[in-house]
Amino acid sequence: MENRLLSLFGERVRTERLARHLSQEQLASLADLDRTYVSGVERGKRNVSLVNISRLSKALNISMSSLIDFEVDDE
Amino acid sequence: MENRLLSLFGERVRTERLARHLSQEQLASLADLDRTYVSGVERGKRNVSLVNISRLSKALNISMSSLIDFEVDDE
Repeated sequence: MENRLLSLFGERVRTERLARHLSQEQLASLADLDRTYVSGVERGKRNVSLVNISRLSKALNISMSSLIDFEVDDE
Repeated sequence: MENRLLSLFGERVRTERLARHLSQEQLASLADLDRTYVSGVERGKRNVSLVNISRLSKALNISMSSLIDFEVDDE
C-alpha cells in the first residue's frame, strides 16, 4: 500500500510539473532540492517529508493539501 | 519557516486526536507508530514522512489533505 502511495504522489508531482512546462531541473531549483531527488520522487522511490512536500508545493504554486488530495485504498 | 510548518502539523494532529478522545498511546497504536514518535510529532519535532502522514490520517479517519490543509507564510 505504501509503495502505491509514493507512486501516486510521484505521478501527481510530475503531472503538476509538466502542466507548468517545468523540467525536473527547474522544479528542483525552485524547490531548493536536488534534481536526482525530484527524479526519485516522481518515480515513487522517495518517502517525501513534510518539509519537502511544502517546498515542492510552493515551487509548483499549489497548496500542500492539493498535492496530496488522493487516497490509497488498503488493498 | 520549516519549524513553524512542523509545529502547525503537530498542533493539527493533536487537535484531531483530542477531538476523537484518543490518547497518544491509542493514536500510536491505531497508526502502527511508536507513542514517543506521536509525542514528537505533536511537539513539532518530527519532519513527518508521507507514509506516516497517511498512517496518522487513516488512524484519525480523515483525509491526508485535510490533515495538512494549512499554509505557512514565508516570514
